[in-house]
Amino acid sequence: MRVLVIGGAGTIGKAVTAALRGRHEVVTAGRSSGERRVDMTDAASIARLFAAIGRVGAVVSCAGDASFKPLTQLRDEDFDLGLRSKLMGQINLVRYGVDSVADGGSFTLTSGILNRYPAPGTAAIAVVNGGIDGFVRAAALELPRGIRINVVSPPWVSETLVAMGRDPSGGLPATVVAEAYVRSVEGTDTGALLEPNGTRSLVGAE
Amino acid sequence: MRVLVIGGAGTIGKAVTAALRGRHEVVTAGRSSGERRVDMTDAASIARLFAAIGRVGAVVSCAGDASFKPLTQLRDEDFDLGLRSKLMGQINLVRYGVDSVADGGSFTLTSGILNRYPAPGTAAIAVVNGGIDGFVRAAALELPRGIRINVVSPPWVSETLVAMGRDPSGGLPATVVAEAYVRSVEGTDTGALLEPNGTRSLVGAE
Repeated sequence: MRVLVIGGAGTIGKAVTAALRGRHEVVTAGRSSGERRVDMTDAASIARLFAAIGRVGAVVSCAGDASFKPLTQLRDEDFDLGLRSKLMGQINLVRYGVDSVADGGSFTLTSGILNRYPAPGTAAIAVVNGGIDGFVRAAALELPRGIRINVVSPPWVSETLVAMGRDPSGGLPATVVAEAYVRSVEGTDTGALLEPNGTRSLVGAE
Repeated sequence: MRVLVIGGAGTIGKAVTAALRGRHEVVTAGRSSGERRVDMTDAASIARLFAAIGRVGAVVSCAGDASFKPLTQLRDEDFDLGLRSKLMGQINLVRYGVDSVADGGSFTLTSGILNRYPAPGTAAIAVVNGGIDGFVRAAALELPRGIRINVVSPPWVSETLVAMGRDPSGGLPATVVAEAYVRSVEGTDTGALLEPNGTRSLVGAE
């Protein structure tokens, strides 16, 4: 099927794109890379992306920014970035993209474990991840034409830990994380929080 | 102790205020009622509230709006309302109020079950509730001076169901819901998601 991957240039996005290519026709979009340009903080930019690409079978988002900072150093703008980019950006992919998705198609968004397993410095990110998880569970009940929606909640990714100079054994390789996205695209789950270690939480089951 | 209750005029807020009065010195604040005025969507208004009231032992929020509407009818403004009012309003109570809370004091915020047990029409509310739950878990790790923070996640309240013309047996009475707030104020929990049926989920335990 035709799959739109947004944020395909990031650590997870590259692995997701690689996993989907060959099996599907992948179209990539991003702020500064990929085949199409999109600004996740701008609903009009998202609407233009969908108008330009036509019908797709699946939309996969690995995109969106949020601020990692100690609570006392988080400014209004830091919260605002996460809300406009990773949170409302991904929600707007669904709102402005739903008419471009084929019957029985799917959305796969990205949150992350930090709302469930926080660490110091993750308060603004935890807001965003929790919001995405909640949205996906609720939106799954209302999407039309059999369209599914799931959220992948990745742990730390080994490659990211390496880049940060930390022990990579505390994370999962991006290729393993990517399997959760493939499962969401090719499987039958909806309203699921997919964890890349192979588990999932269904609506209301957490 | 001195307890600031914001949103004390709502169904839950009235029960919380009643449960705390007599045991504590309660100061109420709200948009259009209570002893003090505060606009939850305006960080400056929240900062003024704390500057005016002085030191408190606990801050309890039962305040904030969000839109209940079918997914396809939710407009940008509907999401915005929830993010500015119930989500960032409550987060800003913590950010702008922390210096007014005594050592070992507490914040108690309100989310709701709809991010974990959604229903049609709750997508925008689920975003907000999920965001609050995530924030509270993460912020608990970083609040200074032994200050605690919990979130109460109420189910439907019987009185609200009656007002909606629905069967009240699907909800809990506001007096029972209020007990979770009292537990948060008087107990030792922090980073906890308190459910008014007496259960709680600790950080990372959901």
